[in-house]
Amino acid sequence: MRILLDVMGGDHHPKELVKGGIEIGRLRNVEIVFAGDPQLISRALADLGEADGNTFHILPCSQVVQMDDSPVKAVRDKSDSSLVRGLKELKAQSVDAFVSPGNTGAVVAGSLFALGRIKGIPRPGILTSLPTLEGQDTFLIDVGATSDCHAEHLVHFAQMGTTYAREVIGIETPSVGLLNIGGEQGKGNRLMTKAYQLLENTDLRFVGNVEAHQIIMNRPADVVVADGFVGNICLKSIEGSVSAITGILKKSIRESVVAKLGALLMKRAFDSLRSAVSYQKRGGAPLLGVNGVVVIAHGRSDAETIASAIDVARREVEANLTEKISQAVPHSVQNGS
Amino acid sequence: MRILLDVMGGDHHPKELVKGGIEIGRLRNVEIVFAGDPQLISRALADLGEADGNTFHILPCSQVVQMDDSPVKAVRDKSDSSLVRGLKELKAQSVDAFVSPGNTGAVVAGSLFALGRIKGIPRPGILTSLPTLEGQDTFLIDVGATSDCHAEHLVHFAQMGTTYAREVIGIETPSVGLLNIGGEQGKGNRLMTKAYQLLENTDLRFVGNVEAHQIIMNRPADVVVADGFVGNICLKSIEGSVSAITGILKKSIRESVVAKLGALLMKRAFDSLRSAVSYQKRGGAPLLGVNGVVVIAHGRSDAETIASAIDVARREVEANLTEKISQAVPHSVQNGS
Repeated sequence: MRILLDVMGGDHHPKELVKGGIEIGRLRNVEIVFAGDPQLISRALADLGEADGNTFHILPCSQVVQMDDSPVKAVRDKSDSSLVRGLKELKAQSVDAFVSPGNTGAVVAGSLFALGRIKGIPRPGILTSLPTLEGQDTFLIDVGATSDCHAEHLVHFAQMGTTYAREVIGIETPSVGLLNIGGEQGKGNRLMTKAYQLLENTDLRFVGNVEAHQIIMNRPADVVVADGFVGNICLKSIEGSVSAITGILKKSIRESVVAKLGALLMKRAFDSLRSAVSYQKRGGAPLLGVNGVVVIAHGRSDAETIASAIDVARREVEANLTEKISQAVPHSVQNGS
Repeated sequence: MRILLDVMGGDHHPKELVKGGIEIGRLRNVEIVFAGDPQLISRALADLGEADGNTFHILPCSQVVQMDDSPVKAVRDKSDSSLVRGLKELKAQSVDAFVSPGNTGAVVAGSLFALGRIKGIPRPGILTSLPTLEGQDTFLIDVGATSDCHAEHLVHFAQMGTTYAREVIGIETPSVGLLNIGGEQGKGNRLMTKAYQLLENTDLRFVGNVEAHQIIMNRPADVVVADGFVGNICLKSIEGSVSAITGILKKSIRESVVAKLGALLMKRAFDSLRSAVSYQKRGGAPLLGVNGVVVIAHGRSDAETIASAIDVARREVEANLTEKISQAVPHSVQNGS
């Protein structure tokens, strides 16, 4: 298996990302193609005791899609960027998957342009895994690929999320909830009321509406479906709260010797908190609905996070997910495109 | 000043709410009218050393709007409920404000029905205050009154939120941000793109888009505007994260003596965390846009929270907020109703 990593678009230096790629490549026996500035990559490889060879490869690219680039414009104008070149390699099937910590909008636009959509799925969705108090993660789709959804798109997200949870994670009959602002049927806005009706009439294991505060408390469903705007707000609200709370605690600990000692005694408690809410171990968010395995990593990804994102891509390839999604979506469904 | 408290709709026993009403009534020298089961209320008053008299009053009601009642149906069918009777008292101006920890949808529907809308504001919004790392709260509007918004409604929310922040909180020229999934203009869905354009052309101090993770981290604006569906998801995501994290810490502390000692040493750190994220002290969410002062308290409200909600109502009345909002909204604005 060969996975291509775009090392240019993230917040960290390419060397940090090359490090993550090498770690997971060795661990999983997967070839990694590093796309980006060839000098930076070969130096990073050398520093880490590797070289362009049988396991690790360099795809030299001269351009970089920046975080604040306009997605469509970047994809059109920067044809020699690691992002655009990487997706072309995936299209040409010279690699099995594409992983990028870059501009999310540009990865989505580039994927749609280079790979096209799976038949029957007019809009892609980004799936992310969220920590829950139950221990097991839950999967939220979409967190930002499609910000103006029709109810039919939400059904596709449910079908894709279910397929992911079954084929990649191994949950036999995944349950699906609809992210809404009330539990009973009929609650919420027009979009959700309609999506509820459609989901009831699928063969999915639909468990009804779930509310935002339940997701990480009670894990009300294996897969939670949202339109991309709302899913993104939910995800970022959770991320912001986690950062804020750990920030408050860290500050208090820094400011007092007594609290420092207390924190030392609480180390295991804090470790379990960190592992529960850590986004490092949830590095990869699959972009589902496009014709190929694309995984979007957080812009702040370090070596550990990027290794995790590559591993997400590897599991998707092994599960033959793109094909499985294509089989799961009835092509005759009204697609609302 | 006279404030009416609906003691029947919340999760707690009416006695707990009567306690909160007595506390704030004494502290602020405000008359409180308790609406609900007269026997329960008079017993609670007696237990707390008070009686139906000059400061505290009883409005006897025989029905209760339950949390899971359908809002419109409950308002229509339960004419002798504390919720409906309370709002009628407000309409008749025999009280200055109405506070309820009950069914939010029913309070909104009942308020629209009994009080009507402020001219020029076709859709009401619920404003809530959120803790931030900066110390000062930020105000999010709407968190659930109007779940299908037009861009014009978001402008009204901005106008009402600004008026609240200025007249009630005392912020001279409040800044307004739009809750969106990206910082730059043009990001987000169609609704937000349009609302951005409209807000740019008002005389409000519009600071552009703000993202969900920034709200409690950086306090990017005094007032953050969202459609009711998205605002509710944001609020509940934050609440759920805070509960989950404090839950994880509490569990770890319970399970280990060493951690218990550590937590003792970190008491001040945890106290500052609790006060930063406490929703007890933020008990009241004003329903803005209706003709009268209505404050919605959390269903889980205890005495402290309900006292805080009544105090929010008191400050609104003192600031003459309903009148100020009416003056702030140009009646000629296209109201998208």
